[in-house]
Amino acid sequence: MSQHKITQAPIPMRLVGPVRIVGDVVDDSVMLPLATYETPLWPSVGRGARVATLAGGIKATLIDERMTRSILLEAADASKALAAWQSISSRIDEMNMVVRESSRFANLINLHNQIVGNMLYIRLEFTTGDASGHNMVTLAAEKLQDWILGEYPELKYTSISANFCTDKKATAVNGILGRGKNVVCELLIPRELCERRLKTTPEAVVDLNIKKNLIGTMLAGGIRSANAHFANMLLAFYLATGQDAANIVEGSQGIVHAEVRNGDLYFSVSLPNLIVGTVGNGKGGSEGLDFVDENLRLIGCREERAPGENARRLAVICAASVLCGELSLLAAQTNPGELMAAHVKFER
Amino acid sequence: MSQHKITQAPIPMRLVGPVRIVGDVVDDSVMLPLATYETPLWPSVGRGARVATLAGGIKATLIDERMTRSILLEAADASKALAAWQSISSRIDEMNMVVRESSRFANLINLHNQIVGNMLYIRLEFTTGDASGHNMVTLAAEKLQDWILGEYPELKYTSISANFCTDKKATAVNGILGRGKNVVCELLIPRELCERRLKTTPEAVVDLNIKKNLIGTMLAGGIRSANAHFANMLLAFYLATGQDAANIVEGSQGIVHAEVRNGDLYFSVSLPNLIVGTVGNGKGGSEGLDFVDENLRLIGCREERAPGENARRLAVICAASVLCGELSLLAAQTNPGELMAAHVKFER
Amino acid sequence: MSQHKITQAPIPMRLVGPVRIVGDVVDDSVMLPLATYETPLWPSVGRGARVATLAGGIKATLIDERMTRSILLEAADASKALAAWQSISSRIDEMNMVVRESSRFANLINLHNQIVGNMLYIRLEFTTGDASGHNMVTLAAEKLQDWILGEYPELKYTSISANFCTDKKATAVNGILGRGKNVVCELLIPRELCERRLKTTPEAVVDLNIKKNLIGTMLAGGIRSANAHFANMLLAFYLATGQDAANIVEGSQGIVHAEVRNGDLYFSVSLPNLIVGTVGNGKGGSEGLDFVDENLRLIGCREERAPGENARRLAVICAASVLCGELSLLAAQTNPGELMAAHVKFER
Amino acid sequence: MSQHKITQAPIPMRLVGPVRIVGDVVDDSVMLPLATYETPLWPSVGRGARVATLAGGIKATLIDERMTRSILLEAADASKALAAWQSISSRIDEMNMVVRESSRFANLINLHNQIVGNMLYIRLEFTTGDASGHNMVTLAAEKLQDWILGEYPELKYTSISANFCTDKKATAVNGILGRGKNVVCELLIPRELCERRLKTTPEAVVDLNIKKNLIGTMLAGGIRSANAHFANMLLAFYLATGQDAANIVEGSQGIVHAEVRNGDLYFSVSLPNLIVGTVGNGKGGSEGLDFVDENLRLIGCREERAPGENARRLAVICAASVLCGELSLLAAQTNPGELMAAHVKFER
Repeated sequence: MSQHKITQAPIPMRLVGPVRIVGDVVDDSVMLPLATYETPLWPSVGRGARVATLAGGIKATLIDERMTRSILLEAADASKALAAWQSISSRIDEMNMVVRESSRFANLINLHNQIVGNMLYIRLEFTTGDASGHNMVTLAAEKLQDWILGEYPELKYTSISANFCTDKKATAVNGILGRGKNVVCELLIPRELCERRLKTTPEAVVDLNIKKNLIGTMLAGGIRSANAHFANMLLAFYLATGQDAANIVEGSQGIVHAEVRNGDLYFSVSLPNLIVGTVGNGKGGSEGLDFVDENLRLIGCREERAPGENARRLAVICAASVLCGELSLLAAQTNPGELMAAHVKFER
Repeated sequence: MSQHKITQAPIPMRLVGPVRIVGDVVDDSVMLPLATYETPLWPSVGRGARVATLAGGIKATLIDERMTRSILLEAADASKALAAWQSISSRIDEMNMVVRESSRFANLINLHNQIVGNMLYIRLEFTTGDASGHNMVTLAAEKLQDWILGEYPELKYTSISANFCTDKKATAVNGILGRGKNVVCELLIPRELCERRLKTTPEAVVDLNIKKNLIGTMLAGGIRSANAHFANMLLAFYLATGQDAANIVEGSQGIVHAEVRNGDLYFSVSLPNLIVGTVGNGKGGSEGLDFVDENLRLIGCREERAPGENARRLAVICAASVLCGELSLLAAQTNPGELMAAHVKFER
Repeated sequence: MSQHKITQAPIPMRLVGPVRIVGDVVDDSVMLPLATYETPLWPSVGRGARVATLAGGIKATLIDERMTRSILLEAADASKALAAWQSISSRIDEMNMVVRESSRFANLINLHNQIVGNMLYIRLEFTTGDASGHNMVTLAAEKLQDWILGEYPELKYTSISANFCTDKKATAVNGILGRGKNVVCELLIPRELCERRLKTTPEAVVDLNIKKNLIGTMLAGGIRSANAHFANMLLAFYLATGQDAANIVEGSQGIVHAEVRNGDLYFSVSLPNLIVGTVGNGKGGSEGLDFVDENLRLIGCREERAPGENARRLAVICAASVLCGELSLLAAQTNPGELMAAHVKFER
Repeated sequence: MSQHKITQAPIPMRLVGPVRIVGDVVDDSVMLPLATYETPLWPSVGRGARVATLAGGIKATLIDERMTRSILLEAADASKALAAWQSISSRIDEMNMVVRESSRFANLINLHNQIVGNMLYIRLEFTTGDASGHNMVTLAAEKLQDWILGEYPELKYTSISANFCTDKKATAVNGILGRGKNVVCELLIPRELCERRLKTTPEAVVDLNIKKNLIGTMLAGGIRSANAHFANMLLAFYLATGQDAANIVEGSQGIVHAEVRNGDLYFSVSLPNLIVGTVGNGKGGSEGLDFVDENLRLIGCREERAPGENARRLAVICAASVLCGELSLLAAQTNPGELMAAHVKFER
């Protein structure tokens, strides 16, 4: 291997499923492409997919979508920072004209601020069509920043990215103000199915979710997160579909909520921060990532649709894969010994 | 593509560097293997590597290493949970005999507990030789749990993994009690080098680190984290070396500390939670992941050494790659316009 | 002492200062009433007040104000929760008519939501005149909840207070979305004054703030907080002015930002969550808390002014007292030995 | 009122109860002294106390106790910081001889560290007899710091208190490593009692606790906390018994865990960070705080006992008051309308 050549890391990949998804964005049965070194993930997600399909399908709801970038400016003092903010935040229409010069897909939808001493943090929130939007919002933020510095000479540049965005860090702001697609997936599993296929009971899953995901994570000092292993499914799905997989850091901050309802198991995953796209970096074409292109096509995310539709479909399928894997692992952990047995079995 | 066949996700990979590292664990110049869809990362880390090498090399210190798993048991009440804990925590030698039956590399080194109501969370801490240790500690935890349930019939099983471990979630416990390798990398960059190669000043980097990484992340509601993009380098390095890359979630919780010292730039990254190994899952051999094997060999992590030495070397090289990429991005962000220009340039 | 009689806990109280405050809300010299068992606080705040006054006064800016309550409702599924939210959030004018029935001071200014599974959390944000507003927003939330349940029979009641408010807990939401008065206080201290009166240098204070308040708190797993002892001043000021002092829990989540500017010390405290009022519970009158009444009058917060003006004045004076105490303690801690000496001296 | 005179803030105080407590530390019926402006707290805690007593009493367990202070030192680099730490942490016996010179009650029991760049944070953990120990550990830390700086001239002083302690801030470290008394209080409430006296069902309380305290606080970005209003009871109890009430900031980070057990309600509060003492600042005597003395005597915390026994008793009674108030409020919130009705009623 010559040291400077571009080569490849061929991560094992498999299509798992199909899983039935029902809802406004997706109403379909889809295979789940998962690329991972942790191959026991495949049968685990597969089991969840079978149970979900037998239970009538995963109900998926897309709650919100936006992509953000924060900039940092400084004024002479807090009073002047506040005055500038009050003026800037009233000029969103003008700002959108600036944004349009940088991209025909970016659309500025909201602003939030933080003032600390004389520093003014502005969080810019955009819709970005079918792109996850990292570069689109950085470019738009640069244009907006130039415009702001021109209009408000009393402000000075500090940073084009100020960690109040926030990208690839586990924080609270993304869940509270939104970043990426916010998707909820729900499933009602009849008791009999729960017992036969998951070898557990609704009560056991609910109990484990409370004691492990909710209380256990809290004891560990977690932040806005209550799940067993969202990160595993996200990584595998992101790698297989050409996403910037470092976004699993915030993507994995999600919540399992489960209840016993009339003897059956209500099981849901809420994922407020899925940063995914069907166009842009790593999505095939000139970069030669044909497998990404093929995977996106296979799951129906390369169709001719209105801007954003393909990306919303992708987010929902991603969230469904998370539900399948989470359900399966939690069920396994209600039974002492099953977790390791599965690992030992599947890794061979 | 047949839907159930195992195929591959061929992520673009490149060797970046070399970078000079000095210290007890590594004293060498190494190339950094980075697999990523975000190809601007390569020149960015490359610039950091050049600067680091010109500055005399990155000083790397391995502070600690351990791998953990938490189990959850229940007693009749808190008083009985406490009594059980007091007894269990006094029998670590006996417990280690149980551990030895499951692995010759696992070694139980410490226990921590949490009692909530009548629930007893026990965090088991092990050294695991050259393996990252996920499976090793799960297996050991299962054996220990069986032993505890046998010795303390007043306790009952709740979960083999209780999120107080904590694996692939961003929490505070791993940084406070330790999980994975804890590595600090430091660099002293002469002002002249800073200005010539990074196009910035020590003062500008220090200022940006405070306002973006420390204050910006805090405003976002971050937890034990202050950096710009540790996650990017970790993902690329983990994928290239066969690691379980979902561990970037906690791995990316690290801290940049920078100071102006006698006019020069002191720049450090502290990474308390690097979960890496040179043997085990995804490390080549029977699974056919030859590229991982090759990369590990190339960076000198396949040598005949005492157990654990190869993995410690790997952790230090990983941390060095993080320093290079972080330094380069922060320097770029001190200059308005440079960030996007770099992205636009390198992505073409 | 008869066991069921109402008696009193007579906490030691003292007027400290005066301190000069300059800004739109307050432009005045005021004494600071501080009730505390920790009597070394008095001379400590007093020193800060003297330095601040000599430096030309504390520049105070009121950034924002609002009071919140969150309610929790449930729909059949996430899709129906989303549909209800979209409708509710478009009817804020109608909702305000409902609010007016419960109070002539409460004004609904914004709504935020969270959807988890089929649960809909709604955060209601109000202005509340001169009251801190705990009861006013609870009453308004009850009226709004009744109205919502009437208009949206597909929703069912879960809780009138759902911890997404959030009252008397340390979280991220209050700082990000606002709760209480958001006040920034700034001071520029000439180097000479810093050295003579605080026995330290601008550089030493800045260095300590970074290493203790910013990095130290982060290492401890803090959330949106970077200060040495905001809680002490807040408690003493809240008790002396009849506030609900349990609100120091979130009130103490604030940030010190300090810099060396042209050789002088820029020192600021940012307090985004001051829950204070000049009317309502514990503010004298029928409850016989005459001392509260007297203290409020003494600091000029009992004047005839437009609704909200007295409360804003109170918040700014409170924040100024925090600056004085924080500055003094940080200065002391730059000198080994001074902290304890002060305690030993003042407690006698 | 002369402006510089020490006067008093006479906070309304009442004895509430009695409540029956059973366990190793307390086996008794006690009145609860509560000083507060929020007078509806009295009947609310009172209702909880009656229910708890009727249910057979609160089972209280003291899990742990310690008081901490962190110091911050710097070495030339991380490697030297690590070497110093390894040596220091092996000399705990010598260090305890130094501690004994500062106090006959302080006893160093453990050390923890954090290394960031070249900085060494050391968390010193002590037992402190019947004192809460703020001053005792500060004094001991100063002595230890002097000793360390003498023994390790390669280290230099940065701060006597480095926020890794951590005092009066909401963080994760205190719950994970311990600070103050760690107390669990449990109660089993027969269904019939729950329905008759609390006007609710076990199922409703359990459901509300999950959705409000666990999930709601998590959504808000809370840290290691799941309760409705621990802060209220803590403030009132701390003020009435002469505690440093600013410690409610971390004290209120506690967890409610409730379950339906055989149709009855298991209800527990876990409070890992109660900073309380029966001697020291504000505890009567020379400072003339006779009411504190009287309250402590009344609840049996002024007896001749082994050092630490009175303080442990105090912590357990404090935690019991928290259980009573939390139970009562949660029960009220399961019924729409009851919360406000109670406030309106009791405040008149």
